[in-house]
Amino acid sequence: MYDIISNSPFFRGLNPSEVESILGKISHSIKTFSKGQTIAQREEEVKNLCIVVAGSVKGEMVDFSGKILKIEEMFAPQPIAHAFLFGERNRYPVDVIALEDCKILFIPKPDVIRMLQQSDVILRNYLNAISNRAQFLSNKLWFLSFKTIKEKVAHYLLSLTKSDSKATILLPKSHQELAELFGVTRPSLARVFAELQDEGIITVNRREISIINRNRLLEMIR
Amino acid sequence: MYDIISNSPFFRGLNPSEVESILGKISHSIKTFSKGQTIAQREEEVKNLCIVVAGSVKGEMVDFSGKILKIEEMFAPQPIAHAFLFGERNRYPVDVIALEDCKILFIPKPDVIRMLQQSDVILRNYLNAISNRAQFLSNKLWFLSFKTIKEKVAHYLLSLTKSDSKATILLPKSHQELAELFGVTRPSLARVFAELQDEGIITVNRREISIINRNRLLEMIR
Repeated sequence: MYDIISNSPFFRGLNPSEVESILGKISHSIKTFSKGQTIAQREEEVKNLCIVVAGSVKGEMVDFSGKILKIEEMFAPQPIAHAFLFGERNRYPVDVIALEDCKILFIPKPDVIRMLQQSDVILRNYLNAISNRAQFLSNKLWFLSFKTIKEKVAHYLLSLTKSDSKATILLPKSHQELAELFGVTRPSLARVFAELQDEGIITVNRREISIINRNRLLEMIR
Repeated sequence: MYDIISNSPFFRGLNPSEVESILGKISHSIKTFSKGQTIAQREEEVKNLCIVVAGSVKGEMVDFSGKILKIEEMFAPQPIAHAFLFGERNRYPVDVIALEDCKILFIPKPDVIRMLQQSDVILRNYLNAISNRAQFLSNKLWFLSFKTIKEKVAHYLLSLTKSDSKATILLPKSHQELAELFGVTRPSLARVFAELQDEGIITVNRREISIINRNRLLEMIR
């Protein structure tokens, strides 16, 4: 089990026996949930750092009208709601439900703090994980300020190229990750890439994008 | 000066002489900037925790077309870009410029880590500050998913009341903070509150809101 935990973002850089020794010094528990069981309810206080160590879970939000609004999936060894353990609104933003039979590691908040003070590897990992979440959300908000998917793509491609001439870039994200960042579906994003290619503005070869007409991209966001 | 720093979110709970003693053990510097001077450029690596200790600064983002897109102001003793010191994209998201003559405290990243390990008050404060930022952004994204300001307000008011009958609530945020959360101007928000009051759905008395017709609020978000 410690080999799975050592792959979680918080324990990166530690080997399984180091993880075992650290967890041996703090209180923690591993609980088993069956498929469909509720692990945490929306608005419940987040009192533990929770890491999926086997199986997978989903986060769901139910609207006032009963409609399910948002679904996120987390697989072992991903954490659950780690940006909500601290802060003023330390409550689950979603209902967390077992997608299949699963095991969850719970580390109580005071023990998380002790662990962070004892290991500077875990401290850096934890600060990076929360900061990454804030940076991802900040980036996503920025892209939401553009109305169309074309504008989002134009802005993104321009942000990756500094020169004012032709350029070839390797996308640092997969199409799936880009779709998630822009808040659109993957097929919609693929359609925009295809359109931009048809119009002779870019050429697409998987993650390699060549900018043929930078001025046309600039025009799109004006 | 230590009395100002002790009021910053990171040193909350410590008195000025405790702050002086902690800073005495780590390397740090205080630099003076004149009005209009650039403190940091967008995309520059964030290598220090920066706290405004006198005066104020602004964060600006310049579009590819030369248009200034976003302005944020930070006054002493607020931090600058604290959610960007760690994480994978630890670069300034904006240009930071002095709004008036100001003084900035710089603490290099390795010293921030040492400080966090030495003081569990500062550790908790720092985790809270980054988490608050992630929670604020997450909340803001959630509200952006509603098209009109009226929908945003309806959703917000419903989220504050659990019962299905009449209720009076005290807004936990000022109208200015709400406008910022919803990504709208304060006058637009005030107009929506006035409309909802005219329609007999709520009554507004500063931060005290009475919900008169909950069903009408529910209809708005369906």
